[in-house]
Amino acid sequence: MSPGVRALSVYQAELRIKSERRVQVIDVTDQVREKVRESGVEKGIAHVYSRHTTAAVVVNEPESGLLRDIVNKLEELVPQGAGYEHDRIDNNADAHLRALLLGSSVTIPVSDGDLVLGTWQSVLFVELDGPRSRRLLVTVVGE
Amino acid sequence: MSPGVRALSVYQAELRIKSERRVQVIDVTDQVREKVRESGVEKGIAHVYSRHTTAAVVVNEPESGLLRDIVNKLEELVPQGAGYEHDRIDNNADAHLRALLLGSSVTIPVSDGDLVLGTWQSVLFVELDGPRSRRLLVTVVGE
Amino acid sequence: MSPGVRALSVYQAELRIKSERRVQVIDVTDQVREKVRESGVEKGIAHVYSRHTTAAVVVNEPESGLLRDIVNKLEELVPQGAGYEHDRIDNNADAHLRALLLGSSVTIPVSDGDLVLGTWQSVLFVELDGPRSRRLLVTVVGE
Repeated sequence: MSPGVRALSVYQAELRIKSERRVQVIDVTDQVREKVRESGVEKGIAHVYSRHTTAAVVVNEPESGLLRDIVNKLEELVPQGAGYEHDRIDNNADAHLRALLLGSSVTIPVSDGDLVLGTWQSVLFVELDGPRSRRLLVTVVGE
Repeated sequence: MSPGVRALSVYQAELRIKSERRVQVIDVTDQVREKVRESGVEKGIAHVYSRHTTAAVVVNEPESGLLRDIVNKLEELVPQGAGYEHDRIDNNADAHLRALLLGSSVTIPVSDGDLVLGTWQSVLFVELDGPRSRRLLVTVVGE
Repeated sequence: MSPGVRALSVYQAELRIKSERRVQVIDVTDQVREKVRESGVEKGIAHVYSRHTTAAVVVNEPESGLLRDIVNKLEELVPQGAGYEHDRIDNNADAHLRALLLGSSVTIPVSDGDLVLGTWQSVLFVELDGPRSRRLLVTVVGE
């Protein structure tokens, strides 16, 4: 590697999350930031991924009133127990459908060795069928 | 390349999908997995992208009841033919709006040369204006 | 670097967007394309990221009727001022909730030094709480 040419690398690490309610938004920004620091990547992207079909990962503001608005809006758009076919098997169709609307991963730029987050942005794990132990996988790609 | 330093690479390959109904969820996990194997990437990310504005790609569980719940929920949230302006041009505004809610691509971590999928997770192509021939582009970045 | 081995690189650049209405869809395809060209990346991925909690980035068709359908559908699914708790602090809960449904970034493949976009696909910035000055960060990773 000649001087001035930085190497690209891939770093991967798991986060463990414990939810305490059926629907709960958990701010995981600090844990994701720590993984980005451990990666040593200065410039690139960080991918935060839920290994679950009844949970989501989003970027938004963790203001307490807004978190209740999110829970209420999900209940309004996709009410629990509204005669879903999947509920015959596993009483959580609403959690799957809500996860589909929110998405199961986010990608965030990395610059100067840190997540690039706007003033009001945080990385939020959205539990939709808790309480459970959950696993997130953080992959950092960059130089 | 010195010993112990693995090279990062980018691999890109297309998948062809044929849908048979207007709205249809098609499990493409095996085809995406095959592209990841062909890439030779051991650790990184796989990006699965729809080149279409009336189709989506998501990660969730392909249980038959849930697939019907997804179709029903999309019809409820964004009914077909509900007086949309775009329908004057091309009778598929609902398909565009549904695609916006679901998203046109997903990124999935790659570890040990394979997609990292939780127990119930599959990669699902969501046709919203079929039947059609569709193209997905899989990009694998990693080492 | 031996002949035939291309180097992977990471390129990052900011786009400035000025919105003129509260809710407005702005086509940023040309600006993103220019950043991809500047990156020199031939094959890889481009990540387009909003640093804001009340704006979104999507890929879809910028047909004028459809853009009005998008605005109408967002107003129907998440009406402005519908008694949200966050509105006590900052009168824009609807903008946050709409951003959550649409997503704050997109990833698009890069091939032959350009974005891979289907016939009807454009990169759209969705202002949800304008008019404002907004910043997008484009990260291009590839070879």
